[in-house]
This record gives sequence, structure tokens and C-alpha cells, in this order.
Amino acid sequence: MRAVDLIRKKRDSGEHSREEIDFLVSRYTRGDIPDYQMAAWLMAVWIRGMSRSELTALTGAMLYSGEVLNLSDLPGKKVDKHSTGGIGDKTSLILAPIVAAGGLTVPMISGRGLGHTGGTLDKLEAIPGFNVNLSLEQFRAVLKECGMGLIGQTKEIAPADKKIYALRDATSTVENIGLICGSIMSKKLAEGIDALVLDVKVGSGAFMKREEQAVNLAEVMIDTGKRMGKKVVALITDMDQPLGRAAGHANEVAECIDVLNGGGPDDLRDLSLELSAWMFYLGERTKSVDEGRRLAGTMIASGQAREKFKQGIRLQGGDQRVVDEPQRLPQAHFHADVPSPATTNCEQFGIALAVLGGGREKKEDVIDHAVGLQFHKRIGDRVEQGEALATIYYNAATRLPEATDLLAKNFLIGQQAPTEKHPLIRRVIGV
Amino acid sequence: MRAVDLIRKKRDSGEHSREEIDFLVSRYTRGDIPDYQMAAWLMAVWIRGMSRSELTALTGAMLYSGEVLNLSDLPGKKVDKHSTGGIGDKTSLILAPIVAAGGLTVPMISGRGLGHTGGTLDKLEAIPGFNVNLSLEQFRAVLKECGMGLIGQTKEIAPADKKIYALRDATSTVENIGLICGSIMSKKLAEGIDALVLDVKVGSGAFMKREEQAVNLAEVMIDTGKRMGKKVVALITDMDQPLGRAAGHANEVAECIDVLNGGGPDDLRDLSLELSAWMFYLGERTKSVDEGRRLAGTMIASGQAREKFKQGIRLQGGDQRVVDEPQRLPQAHFHADVPSPATTNCEQFGIALAVLGGGREKKEDVIDHAVGLQFHKRIGDRVEQGEALATIYYNAATRLPEATDLLAKNFLIGQQAPTEKHPLIRRVIGV
Repeated sequence: MRAVDLIRKKRDSGEHSREEIDFLVSRYTRGDIPDYQMAAWLMAVWIRGMSRSELTALTGAMLYSGEVLNLSDLPGKKVDKHSTGGIGDKTSLILAPIVAAGGLTVPMISGRGLGHTGGTLDKLEAIPGFNVNLSLEQFRAVLKECGMGLIGQTKEIAPADKKIYALRDATSTVENIGLICGSIMSKKLAEGIDALVLDVKVGSGAFMKREEQAVNLAEVMIDTGKRMGKKVVALITDMDQPLGRAAGHANEVAECIDVLNGGGPDDLRDLSLELSAWMFYLGERTKSVDEGRRLAGTMIASGQAREKFKQGIRLQGGDQRVVDEPQRLPQAHFHADVPSPATTNCEQFGIALAVLGGGREKKEDVIDHAVGLQFHKRIGDRVEQGEALATIYYNAATRLPEATDLLAKNFLIGQQAPTEKHPLIRRVIGV
Repeated sequence: MRAVDLIRKKRDSGEHSREEIDFLVSRYTRGDIPDYQMAAWLMAVWIRGMSRSELTALTGAMLYSGEVLNLSDLPGKKVDKHSTGGIGDKTSLILAPIVAAGGLTVPMISGRGLGHTGGTLDKLEAIPGFNVNLSLEQFRAVLKECGMGLIGQTKEIAPADKKIYALRDATSTVENIGLICGSIMSKKLAEGIDALVLDVKVGSGAFMKREEQAVNLAEVMIDTGKRMGKKVVALITDMDQPLGRAAGHANEVAECIDVLNGGGPDDLRDLSLELSAWMFYLGERTKSVDEGRRLAGTMIASGQAREKFKQGIRLQGGDQRVVDEPQRLPQAHFHADVPSPATTNCEQFGIALAVLGGGREKKEDVIDHAVGLQFHKRIGDRVEQGEALATIYYNAATRLPEATDLLAKNFLIGQQAPTEKHPLIRRVIGV
């Protein structure tokens, strides 16, 4: 088997066997196939596409390029959630303690933010002392003790994905349903989970702008997961406006604590409960999604989820006092209101955060966890002239005008309330 | 401008500006754009294609990545011929002396053979002492003295093409009309020529198997040449059977000498005269192609072409005595006839030569110039059972059975003469 022949096959729209994909991924990972051959193959894949069985083979090859956690010695089912990301999307920090408190194990390996989307790891690092860089042995110990753990991709997890992703980034081969699916699923399946709930975002603040794209990605991920013996469902959810009221790292942790305390904005609470409900159901903790929803509500009302979050923070080296005293989270020196001037273009809100140092434009950028946005108006809300649309929390005063401008420009204000509906959960797929 | 954005543009079927193509080619040539980005771009180009103006820009960028010969101080027009290659294709060694003897300058920069096709440089090296590795200064001196010169691509000539070609070879992006055109035309135009005659081969022994592919390549090369201010015509010629009777390096040189002596097989003589005629016409040496054909015939009949060949050999360090005494060319120790057993698959004849050491399977292979084939039968000829179809000249006795088998299998023999016509020159394009 030669790489040059496999490149030719995909170039000519051929379908690879499992052995061919294993050959490409394993040889590339250990450096026997050079970057330039993989780059040519990735471009051919980007343009010609992959069949469902090729995709399953690719996911499997990337998964088994590294270690796959075996958590079978821990009691109960292991479940996780993956979101495709958006502005203010912070449900992991809420549902992990809910579901762990409810008796399942939640082994979350997450990523960092880039561009307009925030990353779970970055949010956790807003909690003083919180260590996301656990070894797999430490991760296993935390999971055993409290049922939840939140870490970054270690070098043992899907190294093929890490190497391929870096190459895709440099060769304009990122935005492809198959390659995205392979990258996500190989990392998630490495967690040793039994079931996965996908939160596929659609709208102006999401990677997928149109619902059919989101449904397509969801179906491909569900199919791949099922072919690999996992239970998978996907919720297609709205990202035409920020989820919750807070964006920015410390800001979002505080809002998660509000929800775990029984408060917080409706949309964030509802989506967190819904995702937890599906995790309970797929993890066979409850007999129905309805029962799962009730169990999730009980975990909040009883304070058990809140206590689980504190335990989780403590076990990963963080200062658990932030749950009782959110003012211990990093605070910005300044804040400024964005007055009302004109649909929201949600993606620009994420860029405004990055402008202020609260997100990354390049991978190497250091994040200011205190930077944040608080949104006062939702789609369809009445606004008086000069009324504050949002509040910006910032430290870098010189960047404020640019951020304010980005925010103000991207609220669309008119005489009529918008007629288009923005249901939070648009569809559930894979049931 | 960033390479990653240009890759994306071509991936999405966009059309590049001249500046964008200049950026890619010049930065890649000097090492500022890595192989993996160029590989992704080449695959996108292979699949999405290039417009005529992109192609002209690519050819220009590759051409000006190196030196372009300025031969304006030599008298008369500078003309060359390029063939896409086939079995027994040896016309360069005949038409260069004819056209130079006729008063034009023929600055030929040629390639080596790979796979089933032979290369002009390899044939020339069958002449003892012949040096194809002249510097551009030496080349210019030879051209000035005798009007013809035959060398290989120097490091000064289109270095971008050399680097890109090596990458295409490793990434399955070779067989693309646009990229092939850019590669050929950038090298040919670097010769500083005024006019170019293309011999585009079609048939089982050619790179292009179908006539419409050949016509398409011819049209693209003509268009690119004309956009760059050159006179270009293309002859679409038959390669369903070997050109002439001889294949193999020493063997082919001997057959060229036969033609220059006024003998040789009809097809080889006719095509050589036809190509020479077009070179005389485009080079404004004659007022018509007919007149060019007569001039070419005179150059042979008068012995002037033969003497020009001797002079050319001598000036490039070769033993000119081979023209009078062809037995001075390398001789094989053995020969064997291929008896008649069953259309010819011409490509396999080239592979049979390579099997015997008379061609390259890999770039590094060393050639046995003495190895050769002599074809006794042409398409439509009557064959008695057991009659010799061809004779093999060889040194490596252990490889004979495999070569004989390849040859015997690829003559197709039936009860009826084939009805399909195989005119040597199928079409002339670009007039």
C-alpha cells in the first residue's frame, strides 16, 4: 500500500477500505507519511467527501492512535455531552455536577476556545487554582471519587487527531462535516463512555449558520457513534443570540453558579436541564427523558448538584469557595454600558470579547478571564432609545471603543418585534 | 496575502488573480510556503481546474522563477518542438539537424524518460561522449556555432517547475491538463523561442489515450503560448503503434541516422518532415508549410542535415563517427525474436524495454543504452504463424521471458485486417 495511490483514489472519488484508512492515519501519526501527502489527501477528502463507513473507519483509526480509557471498574454508566460551541455556551459546568450528583460518571475531555467561541477549559481556569491538566491516572482518580472530571486533551488521547487538526488548520481543510465528525468523535469515544448527548448549535453565533448543515453534522456524528456501539442523540439548539446573559470566562462561571443555586436565566437553565435529562436517560439512570428532567431538577433544588460542583473544583485543585462567594472570581477593573442604537449578529459578540482580551484570536493568545459581557436584552425585547443593551466588563481601556462598536452594530433594532421564532431547542435527532 | 486563504479560494472554485499565483509560486520556490500548503493547493487545482488566464499566470510565474534565455543576438528565428512522448518517438534527433541546417536556431531543452516513455536526453547519451549537461553559457556557444543544441533542464531554468513537479509526483497531482501545460510551457518558453510546434500523441502508447484529451491539452498549450506572445501549432499524431521500427536508445539513434541518410521507416520520416515543415513555416523561413516540407526534404537529400547532426554531436563532446559507423553505438550481446501468437497495446512495449534495463521504472534507475526492440510488423500487416513480430536486443538474459511475454501478449492478431484507420497525423490545431 502506498500513500500516493490512496491520494489518487480519493482524488478520483473512490471509497477507501478500513485498512487503507488505518494505513494513512497510523503511518501519518508516526511520521512515515509526510505532511504534504496528508495535506493532498485531506483536500481530496474535503472536496470529494467520505462515506459513512469511511468516516467510521477514520474515527476509529484516530481513536485507536492513542489510549482509550477503560472506566468499567467505576459503577454506573459513563456519559458525556459535546457541544459544537457558541456565545455564552457554558452548560458543561452545570450538567456535569447535575449528572454526577444523580449517580452517573461524567468523564469530560474538553477543548479551548478559538476565534469567537469560548472553551470549557478556559472557563474552568477562571476558578483560582483549577487544574485542567491532569494525567489520565489523576483523571481516573477524580472520576472515581466524585463522578465528574473536566480535563484537556492529553498527549495519550487521539494523537492522530491532534496532528491532523494542526495540518487542517494550515491547509484550509477545517470546515468539512466528515473531518469535523472524526475529530470530535475520536476524542469523545476515547473517554470510554457508553452514551453521548450532542448539542449541535445553529445560528449566527454558531459554526453552523443553517439548520440543514447542523442536522447533517448531527446525523453523521450519531451514525458514527452508533456504528461504534455507543448511544447517541443530538439536540439541535438555537444560537441566534447568546445562551444566558453572560459571556466571558469569570462571568460565565458566575452565571453557572446562579443556575446551580436555582436561579440564572431561563434559557440556560432549561437547556442544561434538557441535556442532563437526556444524559440520565441514555445512561439508563431513568426510564424516560421526562423522569430525567425531574431528577435533574431535584439535583438542583436539593443543593446536591451545587455540592458536587464544589467537590469537583476541590479535587482538581480549585478554590471551591467561589461557589459561595462568586466575587472571588477574577473581576474587571471597569465596566461600560452599550447604549441602544439597531437581528443580532451573535458571532460578532464573541469577537468583541476577543478584542478586549477575553478570547483568543491566535492559539498562543493569553486570556483575561475577568473580561465579560452581560446581555440585558433578548431577541424580541422592547428597547428605549439610550437604554443599555449590554454591559462590558474590561481592563484594556484602549480597546473599549472597538468592542462597543462591534456590540452596538450587531443588535438589530426596528419598529416591529421580529416575527421569526427562536425556540431554544429546534429538534432532537437520533432517538 | 496568506497561502491558507488562497488554498481556500481554489478549494471553493474561485479564480486567482495574477498576483495571487505569483505569490504562491514565488514564495513556494524560495521556501516561504511549506510543501504541505502547496500540496493542498495543487489538489484543489487538480479537482477544481484553472481558467485560461490563471494558467497563463502560472506558466509565467514558473517561467520567471528562473532565467529566460535571450538569444536575440543570434541570427534568424528560434524555434522548438515539444512532444508529449510515446514509444519509439525520436523525431527531435532528426528535425533539430534539419531545421538548423535550414537556417533557424533550435534551442532544445529536453527531459529524461520515466515509465514506458523514452527521453531525448537518454537517447543522446547512447552516443559515446555526448554531454547533455551544458551550462547555459556553453549551450549558447553551441547554438551560436551550429544552430542546434540539446541539453537537460539546468538549475537556472524554471526552478519552480522542478520543485512543484517533484511535489506533484508524490501527491497524485500529475495528470492535470493545466498543471501539465504549465510545466511544459514554462520550460519551453525559457528557451527564448519565437515559435513552438507541439506533437501531441494520442493512443495506447501515449499519455493521452483518447483524442479529445489530446485536443484539449493541445488547445490549452496553444492558448497559453499565444497569450505569451509566441507562435504555436499542435499536430495530434497517432501512438497506437510505435513510431518507426526501433525502440531502445542506441537502436533509436541508429534509426534516426537512417532517416538523415535518406532511408528509415516511412512513418518516422514523414512525421519528422512534417514537424520540420511547420517549424520552418512558423520560424518564417518559408512562406508556407508546403515550402517548408520541400526545404526539409532538400536538407536530407543534400546531406546537409546529416552533416549538421555530426557537427552538433561534436560540439557537445560526442563521437560524431557514429553517423557514418552506427556499429560504434552500444551493442547488446544477445537478440531474440518474438514469434507471432494475437490491437497492440503500445504502452506495454515500453514497459518491456524497462524490464530489460532499457528504461527507468524509478528516477534513479541506470539505463542500458544497448537494449532495444525492432518491430517487424505494423497495424494491418499480414502475419504467418511463428513469424517474428519483433526482435529483442538484450544483455540481461534472466529478464527475457518476462519481456517476450509482454511483447507477444500485446500484439493482437485476428483473421480480419483491422478496419480502424490509423492516420499518422490526425489533426493540426492552432493555425
